[in-house]
Amino acid sequence: MTETRLPLARLRSFTMAVLEAQGVSPEHAEITATRMLEADLRGRTGHGLIRLPAYSKRIQTGGYNLDPKITVRHETPVSALVDGDNGIGQVVMTRAAEIAIEKALATGVGWVGTRNSNHAGAAGIYPAMALKSGLGALYMAVANGNGMPPWGGTERILGTNPIAFAIPAGSEIPFQLDIATTVASHGTIKVQAQKGEPMPEGWVADAEGNPITDPNRASEGFLLPIGGYKGAGLNIMIGMLAGVMNGAAFGRAVVPFREDHVTPTNTGQAMVAFRPDLFGPRDEYEDRMDDVLRQLRGANPGGDPVVLPGERARARVEEQTRDGVSLPDALVASLDELAAAVGVADRLG
Amino acid sequence: MTETRLPLARLRSFTMAVLEAQGVSPEHAEITATRMLEADLRGRTGHGLIRLPAYSKRIQTGGYNLDPKITVRHETPVSALVDGDNGIGQVVMTRAAEIAIEKALATGVGWVGTRNSNHAGAAGIYPAMALKSGLGALYMAVANGNGMPPWGGTERILGTNPIAFAIPAGSEIPFQLDIATTVASHGTIKVQAQKGEPMPEGWVADAEGNPITDPNRASEGFLLPIGGYKGAGLNIMIGMLAGVMNGAAFGRAVVPFREDHVTPTNTGQAMVAFRPDLFGPRDEYEDRMDDVLRQLRGANPGGDPVVLPGERARARVEEQTRDGVSLPDALVASLDELAAAVGVADRLG
Repeated sequence: MTETRLPLARLRSFTMAVLEAQGVSPEHAEITATRMLEADLRGRTGHGLIRLPAYSKRIQTGGYNLDPKITVRHETPVSALVDGDNGIGQVVMTRAAEIAIEKALATGVGWVGTRNSNHAGAAGIYPAMALKSGLGALYMAVANGNGMPPWGGTERILGTNPIAFAIPAGSEIPFQLDIATTVASHGTIKVQAQKGEPMPEGWVADAEGNPITDPNRASEGFLLPIGGYKGAGLNIMIGMLAGVMNGAAFGRAVVPFREDHVTPTNTGQAMVAFRPDLFGPRDEYEDRMDDVLRQLRGANPGGDPVVLPGERARARVEEQTRDGVSLPDALVASLDELAAAVGVADRLG
Repeated sequence: MTETRLPLARLRSFTMAVLEAQGVSPEHAEITATRMLEADLRGRTGHGLIRLPAYSKRIQTGGYNLDPKITVRHETPVSALVDGDNGIGQVVMTRAAEIAIEKALATGVGWVGTRNSNHAGAAGIYPAMALKSGLGALYMAVANGNGMPPWGGTERILGTNPIAFAIPAGSEIPFQLDIATTVASHGTIKVQAQKGEPMPEGWVADAEGNPITDPNRASEGFLLPIGGYKGAGLNIMIGMLAGVMNGAAFGRAVVPFREDHVTPTNTGQAMVAFRPDLFGPRDEYEDRMDDVLRQLRGANPGGDPVVLPGERARARVEEQTRDGVSLPDALVASLDELAAAVGVADRLG
C-alpha cells in the first residue's frame, strides 16, 4: 500500500472546501477539518479523512443538521449539557470541550455532557485540547453502533464505547490514553480483512463463546470486551456516564452510523476536564508526575525505554505536521472522487 | 470448607472490641468495623474480617497512627485533599467519601483525594456510600503492593489498582462496578493455591510472556492487565489520579503492605461523587436509567436474565444482614485467637 505525503494546511483547505461545497458553514467546516486531521496526525487514521466520504453521504441524505443551534442547558459553575441539535459531531464536541476547559480553569473541575451530537472522531483529541490549556481530562463516548452483548447475554446492545485520558506533566512527555473497551474495533477488524489475515482468538466469539477468526465473518459474532466481565462493566459505565445521564442514545436506541445515514443518532459524549494541581502547588505536582513518568519509562532495565501511551502519537503529530500527512493512495483517490462529485476543483492526487 | 453464620451486630461489636483493645478509639473502631463488614456482606471477603489479623499486626508494630489528625487541605467548593496522617485507611477514606458526598450535593460534583491514607478495604463500598445519598461516584485507589510492570517493561512498579463505580436508578437495582485492572488479584491467586488448582493462562506470565499456572509460583511472574496495553494504561491512569495528583505513593514509592508492617504507606485514593441528575430533572434521569437497566437485563432472549455488576452484591448484603454473615471456620478460629492475644474475652466460635 503506497502512501502520499501532503502538507497539513493543504489537506485542511481541501477538506474545508469539500465540506463547504455541501453546505457546511466555513466555521463548522474549519473545526471539522481540524479535528479530522488531528486524528490522522496522531495515527488514529480510522477516525481521520477516511471518514469524509461517509460524513458526506450523511450530509447529502440530510442526516446532519448543517445549521444547528448548539445550546448550553442545565449549566452550573462545574457542569453543562450541550445539545448539539444534530450538528456535526466534531463541531458539537469541540464546543463541549471548550466549555469543560473554561469551567475547569475557573472552578477546578468542568463536566460537560452532550446530547443530539454525532460521531466526533478520535476520542483522544478532546483530552488533548485540555492538555493545551494545562489541564487534564477524561473523555467517554457512546459508540455509533452495537456489536457486543452485556456479559452473560446474547443481544448486541453495546458498542466499542471508548475512554480517553490526558494529564499534564512538567518536562516529560505527558501520558495520554485512547482505548476502546472492546479488544478489537470495527476498524481493526476491517484492516485484518484487507490484509487477508485471520483475527487472533479473543477478538470475536460466537454465542457459545467459540472464537471466530475469519474477519469476514466477524459480524456473525460478538465483539469481546477487555478483561471479560471487567471490560464489559467499564463499557456499560461509559454508556451510563456519556449516554444515560445526558439523555443521549445508549442500548437499543443507538443508531448504526455505518449503515443508517439518515436517522439522527443522538450521540452522547462526556468530558470531565480538571486542574491537575487541584491538590497543591503546580510545580510540586509537575515534579511528582515527571518522576513517575521517568520511573515508568525506565521500568525495562537493560532494555529499551518503555513507550508509554501518548508518546507515539505525540512524535507522529510533530513529524507529520513538519513533513506532511501520509495518506494511502487509495484514500487520496477516493477523496479526489468525492471532490469531483461535490464540484470542488481542487485535487490531492 | 465449613462456614459459620454470625449476626452482623455481633461481628461488629467483636471487631470493635479487638480494635479498641489495641488502642483504636471507639469512633475509629466503629467506622473500621463497619467498613470491613461491608466488604464481607458484599462478598468481597478478601477485604473483610480476613484482614483483621494483618491490620492488628500493623497496629502493634506502630505502622498506623492511632491518633491521626485527619485534615482537609486545598479545599474548593468542588474538591478537597484529605491528609490521613497515617490513620486507618477505612477511617480516612470514610471521611474523604463524606466530604465528596457533601460537595456533590451542594455543587453537583465533589472530587476528594487522599494522601497519607492506608489500605481502605473493598473499593465498591465507597461509591455505595454515595448511592445512599442519591449520588453516583467513581472511586480509584493505588494498590498496596506492586506485581506488574508497565506494558513493554520488566520492573514491577504497578499494582492491581482498582476502580469502582455506582450510579443510582429509579425502581431498578442500581449498577455497581468494583474491579481490579489486573486479570487476577493476590486474593484470587491465594484462593487458587488453597484449592490446589492451577491458575488459568492469562493471569500471570514470566518476563518472556510465557504463562505461569502454578499459583505457588505466581510471585516469580508478572500480574497481567485486563486487555493487554489497554488495561495497563487504565492502571497507570488510576495511579496518576489517585496517587500523583494527591501526593500519595505510586510506582517505586508504594510500600508492600503484606510484607512491611511498619513503614507508613502514604496510600492514595480518589473519589468523584456527582449528581446523576446533573443534566436534567431527576425523574427523567431515573426513567432513562431504569429503561437501560431493563434492556441490559433482558439482553439474553430465551434465557435467564443477565446479572449485572452490583446485583449479586446487593442480594448478598440483604440476605446476610438478615440471616447472618457467613465466615469460614478457619477465619473464625483465627479471629478468636487474635481476640485472646489482645485480651478480649469475647469469642465467636
